[in-house]
Amino acid sequence: MYDVIIIGMGPAGMNAALYAKRSGLNVLILEKSLPGGLINITNKVENYLGNGISTGRELVEKMLEHIKNFDIEFKRESVNEITDENKVKIVRTNKGEYKAKALILASGRVPKKGDNEKITKLEGRGISYCAVCDAPFYKDKVVGIIGGGNSAFDEGLYLSDFAKKLYMFIRSDEIKADEIFVNKAKKKENIEILLNSNVTDLIEKDGKLSAVEINGKEKIDVDGLFLYIGYSPSTNYFKDLNITDETGYIIVNEKMETSIPGIFAAGDIIKKGVYQIITAASDGSIAALSAKKYIKNLDKN
Amino acid sequence: MYDVIIIGMGPAGMNAALYAKRSGLNVLILEKSLPGGLINITNKVENYLGNGISTGRELVEKMLEHIKNFDIEFKRESVNEITDENKVKIVRTNKGEYKAKALILASGRVPKKGDNEKITKLEGRGISYCAVCDAPFYKDKVVGIIGGGNSAFDEGLYLSDFAKKLYMFIRSDEIKADEIFVNKAKKKENIEILLNSNVTDLIEKDGKLSAVEINGKEKIDVDGLFLYIGYSPSTNYFKDLNITDETGYIIVNEKMETSIPGIFAAGDIIKKGVYQIITAASDGSIAALSAKKYIKNLDKN
Repeated sequence: MYDVIIIGMGPAGMNAALYAKRSGLNVLILEKSLPGGLINITNKVENYLGNGISTGRELVEKMLEHIKNFDIEFKRESVNEITDENKVKIVRTNKGEYKAKALILASGRVPKKGDNEKITKLEGRGISYCAVCDAPFYKDKVVGIIGGGNSAFDEGLYLSDFAKKLYMFIRSDEIKADEIFVNKAKKKENIEILLNSNVTDLIEKDGKLSAVEINGKEKIDVDGLFLYIGYSPSTNYFKDLNITDETGYIIVNEKMETSIPGIFAAGDIIKKGVYQIITAASDGSIAALSAKKYIKNLDKN
Repeated sequence: MYDVIIIGMGPAGMNAALYAKRSGLNVLILEKSLPGGLINITNKVENYLGNGISTGRELVEKMLEHIKNFDIEFKRESVNEITDENKVKIVRTNKGEYKAKALILASGRVPKKGDNEKITKLEGRGISYCAVCDAPFYKDKVVGIIGGGNSAFDEGLYLSDFAKKLYMFIRSDEIKADEIFVNKAKKKENIEILLNSNVTDLIEKDGKLSAVEINGKEKIDVDGLFLYIGYSPSTNYFKDLNITDETGYIIVNEKMETSIPGIFAAGDIIKKGVYQIITAASDGSIAALSAKKYIKNLDKN
């Protein structure tokens, strides 16, 4: 039996593992995909203090290099279900079953997908959620972005180095993103920011996206459309535990404790005000220290 | 008038400045001493995710390099007083007076000093609070440490590379520090860990410390004694604002808001459960984003 199993290996999970291991716990991390979480699909990171300005991948590499020093057990498996049997927590993955005294849920969230049939049909055929992944396909083409937050702008700036022309379709009359992004975008000649612009329909041709309809009227030709319309927490494997709010984010207190003793959560998967790499890493350290206390207490009794 | 003045330039203040500046605010940081705060007197940092294993100074250098990219105004001044005049906050320093719409208090805390006359008299004459600063003075000598937490052990390990013999005087029957530190200390032949050992008196000779008395009985000769007995928040300049608890830590909510609108706090100066570099940096980002919202609202009305 492990002391603690950490689910998810983004900044929250990695830092939870670092802190848990350094406190003397026997740790397993499970990650179904690429270690690093959403940082992997982030073009540029310039707000992780001490890291300077780097690509997302570079920061992930530094974090992985760092935790390698601590000999933490890692398995690339996808968690299907977790069960709380009071002093023992059971984690069932696609490959096996593991037991632990405590769990730290740090599986983060993923970019929200459009929820109508047309969007789903055109995913990979013009619709994308990841500029860092797909930008090269749009070299010298015309693309649009839906969204006006920081990720929309950051990814837009990245895309605009490839695309001939980039439209930013922003539904509201105000830009949510930080000024630093907006100012950079305004300086790029091939970026056009369109406020009060709701994408109301997608027009396809030969099974691929060919244009968008704006506000039920105007049609604008695009070869690609990137959606940055928010995130959904990754909650499938614990939906029976009843530890989330109605939007699927886990409710924790300031110790990162969920309502179930011995189950902690950290990072983008929890309900909170600020979703940043540094806040996720911080949550991870707090969750690990809380898990350590919980286990110490458990072992005494 | 500045948008926001940040008091203190440890990890919380630096990250608050980075986030505030990137969000488009006009920022001033005030720091009375060395930028980097307590990290400066930390021997080794191995739990700031992505940084790997480095000295405290190296991490501070990386953080300073990072924020240099953002052209943030910095003054080396000591704050004497802050006043809240509702929409304007006034900061009086040893050199001048500055106004801002919002403040972020991030002046951290300092190692607690012993509070009896003998200790005060022997400071710099055998009594020290900073192994990284003073260890070289104790080359091949016998030193003691009071404290059993992480900083006591971390600094003890550092000291033990200089000293001939190191006693760790721990009052309780249990070690609070993380196992990783304790295991390392146990492997060092010149470190002796003494549990249930309360230093009850200091014995001096020729105006310098020469020995300690343990539990009112045993005497142990030491050339130096390092105290790691906790921290005191740096609160002098705002003690009239009534925003702290009885121990002097500032009470904030999860948005890092104090009870005074427009005054935020972050890092080691706030009342919380976990005091780490990564949690301080995280607090700083949250405080800055809250200040940004506050100022946006203020400017609208």
